[in-house]
Amino acid sequence: MIGQARHRVVVIGAGFGGKYAAKALRKAPADVTVINGTNHHVFEPLIYQVATGVLSPGEVATPVRELFRGQPNTDVLLGWVTDVDTESRTVTATAPGGLPYQVPYDTLIVAAGTAQSYFGNDRFAEHTLSLKSIDDAVELRSRILTAFEMAEIATDPAEQARLLTFAIVGAGPTGVELAGQIAEIAHRTLPGEYRRIDPAQARIVLIDAADRVLPAFSPGSSAAAARRLRDLGVEVRVGTLVTDVDAGGVQISVDGGAPERIDAITRVWSAGVAAAPLAARIAAATGAPTDRSGRILVEPDLTVPGHPEIFVVGDLMSLDGLPGVAQVSIQGGGYTGRVIRRRLTGKPAGKPFHYFDKGNIATVSRFSAVADLRGVRLSGLAGWLLWLGVHWAYLPRGRNRASSLIRWAVTFLGRSRPERAVTARQAGLPSPAPADPLREPAPAAAPHS
Amino acid sequence: MIGQARHRVVVIGAGFGGKYAAKALRKAPADVTVINGTNHHVFEPLIYQVATGVLSPGEVATPVRELFRGQPNTDVLLGWVTDVDTESRTVTATAPGGLPYQVPYDTLIVAAGTAQSYFGNDRFAEHTLSLKSIDDAVELRSRILTAFEMAEIATDPAEQARLLTFAIVGAGPTGVELAGQIAEIAHRTLPGEYRRIDPAQARIVLIDAADRVLPAFSPGSSAAAARRLRDLGVEVRVGTLVTDVDAGGVQISVDGGAPERIDAITRVWSAGVAAAPLAARIAAATGAPTDRSGRILVEPDLTVPGHPEIFVVGDLMSLDGLPGVAQVSIQGGGYTGRVIRRRLTGKPAGKPFHYFDKGNIATVSRFSAVADLRGVRLSGLAGWLLWLGVHWAYLPRGRNRASSLIRWAVTFLGRSRPERAVTARQAGLPSPAPADPLREPAPAAAPHS
Repeated sequence: MIGQARHRVVVIGAGFGGKYAAKALRKAPADVTVINGTNHHVFEPLIYQVATGVLSPGEVATPVRELFRGQPNTDVLLGWVTDVDTESRTVTATAPGGLPYQVPYDTLIVAAGTAQSYFGNDRFAEHTLSLKSIDDAVELRSRILTAFEMAEIATDPAEQARLLTFAIVGAGPTGVELAGQIAEIAHRTLPGEYRRIDPAQARIVLIDAADRVLPAFSPGSSAAAARRLRDLGVEVRVGTLVTDVDAGGVQISVDGGAPERIDAITRVWSAGVAAAPLAARIAAATGAPTDRSGRILVEPDLTVPGHPEIFVVGDLMSLDGLPGVAQVSIQGGGYTGRVIRRRLTGKPAGKPFHYFDKGNIATVSRFSAVADLRGVRLSGLAGWLLWLGVHWAYLPRGRNRASSLIRWAVTFLGRSRPERAVTARQAGLPSPAPADPLREPAPAAAPHS
Repeated sequence: MIGQARHRVVVIGAGFGGKYAAKALRKAPADVTVINGTNHHVFEPLIYQVATGVLSPGEVATPVRELFRGQPNTDVLLGWVTDVDTESRTVTATAPGGLPYQVPYDTLIVAAGTAQSYFGNDRFAEHTLSLKSIDDAVELRSRILTAFEMAEIATDPAEQARLLTFAIVGAGPTGVELAGQIAEIAHRTLPGEYRRIDPAQARIVLIDAADRVLPAFSPGSSAAAARRLRDLGVEVRVGTLVTDVDAGGVQISVDGGAPERIDAITRVWSAGVAAAPLAARIAAATGAPTDRSGRILVEPDLTVPGHPEIFVVGDLMSLDGLPGVAQVSIQGGGYTGRVIRRRLTGKPAGKPFHYFDKGNIATVSRFSAVADLRGVRLSGLAGWLLWLGVHWAYLPRGRNRASSLIRWAVTFLGRSRPERAVTARQAGLPSPAPADPLREPAPAAAPHS
């Protein structure tokens, strides 16, 4: 029997928004296709731990297919979405290898996430590393560890100082967590392993234009985090503008005063977030308004104005000034999936999206975190234990929870870090080249092991 | 007090040979410098598990510095050794970033390992992947997993078949273990995750010119391994020459018969091993003879003829037809370190190097391995339990042993694999590009998190 054509839902992106949207469509009478630019869903709140050698990529990255193994109405395709034709209702993506393919939809969920914003200064992008993907995290890890290696080889003290200086622009949770972990690498992991340099001499500078770190947190939590960072040896430079970035360092200025230069080989940009480029295409095609960050202003049910068949969730959606945090994506994704299921099963439209703010939490170092919950503020060890419980519970799978717990014990109770391998390719060194000392021309290959 | 200049020992390479040589110099009255092309020592016997998603790079790669943290006479430098001047006794290496640096020695230990040999067919190198380093393993993993992803997108059945064919040239331990693991990925890990293809239809072809797999093992073990491979669905093609390799597949021939073509997007070369290029330079400088594989023929005490200050250990050394296996490197490294220590402490020269053959072991799949020990042959579960015990004991560190055990439980008792993340860069897809919707020119950056 050939049944009636099923309703087709396409989900662009398998971050928090896309994952929870597709999950909520599990029992919907629809064929769901999730298109993602990598084969995995990233647990972004822990990506800084990949960048600092605590967790492996697999521990924060779950294969998208595995998420939907038990959901037979859902297929997963690997591809980079380049365009959406809102007239013919077709998504165009690029497959690995470069060939384009198209997927038609009846309902579309756009959860394509963010890109970095450099506030109009494109050269900042060229000269800084970011921390959004596994690629970013692995590259940053190799840069941090290679900087110490190069300092051990260097003989010029100024060059050693440049190599041992780490400038982090942006003191949100990612910048704070990264600064704290680099400080722990310098002060706990590496001492005793070097003979010519003292890794603890590393200079870690955390810069933000806001007047305090973690500006989205309560002033008390900000102050507690800043104190802990200073205890770790991090230079906290708030109320400070970055006026230039180049291949050798950053230039900063306080209150329009004289510029100060910080020579640093490692420069990280965790300051600006903007909508992924796809948002602009969809806005142009639908006439939807966007906010200053390029996010699409959505209706209260998270649809694009005039296009009830297009939903926007997560970091691409602009609604009531909601922040670009994981919980907004998770709740928006689940809401969208439920709205679509109601429609397809003939139920009346439900309530508008309502965000439930569970609070904020950020780790500064081992045994120290700050948390602003609903009316409760925790810091130090109490905050850290809450962080441990929350993140362990949210890690997507049993197997990765178990190994992550071991990695945390190794890192936080011990002093080593489990994932410190920098490959030849990452360090920019040659790999063993094929050698072929057999000079006689081989008539035919004779492979023997 | 300024003491007398200490004897300087330089160790090139931190594989098994270099690691055990430097370890044996722990209490020698010498300053030891270990130069390695990456920041880690690789536990090579398990590298195929990184290539197949079982272990993370950090679980088979120990930082060289960490190995020598408690050995104050030993410094570690990251660098690719390009030359050795045996007259002035100086090693030249390239640092990350490309700058050369030099390290003088009084005694040199060359443990630079192997490169691939393609038996004179350079185009084979261009069209196959190898499995010697973490770079290789991560690339092979992404190719294997991306082939299944691309098959799910492809619509042409012939293209799907090419994508789902894996040709492995060389049926030594690496080839056998890799073929077995790819079979388990196809038959155990991926089924249930795809909607358009059946991953179990993957074709895995293991090719060797020898008349049996694992030619270094006993005929009984070879037969047991071949049976198990066939049970897993692997096509075992022994007595088979590879006559050509190109971007679309390999061409094989049996007994000079008509060539047969195997279309395969994924092609792995685990057949030939030759000395690293450095061996040729040292041979040219010292006049030392080399064997057909380019390895240096050493004296019974592992020194280069006429150069008692230069030792060659591991895969670069040719002595009595000893095979290029981990145990030869481990024992040769330890022996070399002890010889040098005896010299420096004025003791008489000891006995020539004697290799103690502990036997061979290779896993075919979960719960099945073959082992030839001294007079004892094990296969199936008994062999596998021995494999588990031996490899667990040899894994260099407590922390990685614990997490590896969890990974093995996940993979061998369950059906998933912990490390399956393929990044955008690895898949050849774009990463989120910097987006900057703020059209007004930014006067100065205003980083806000």
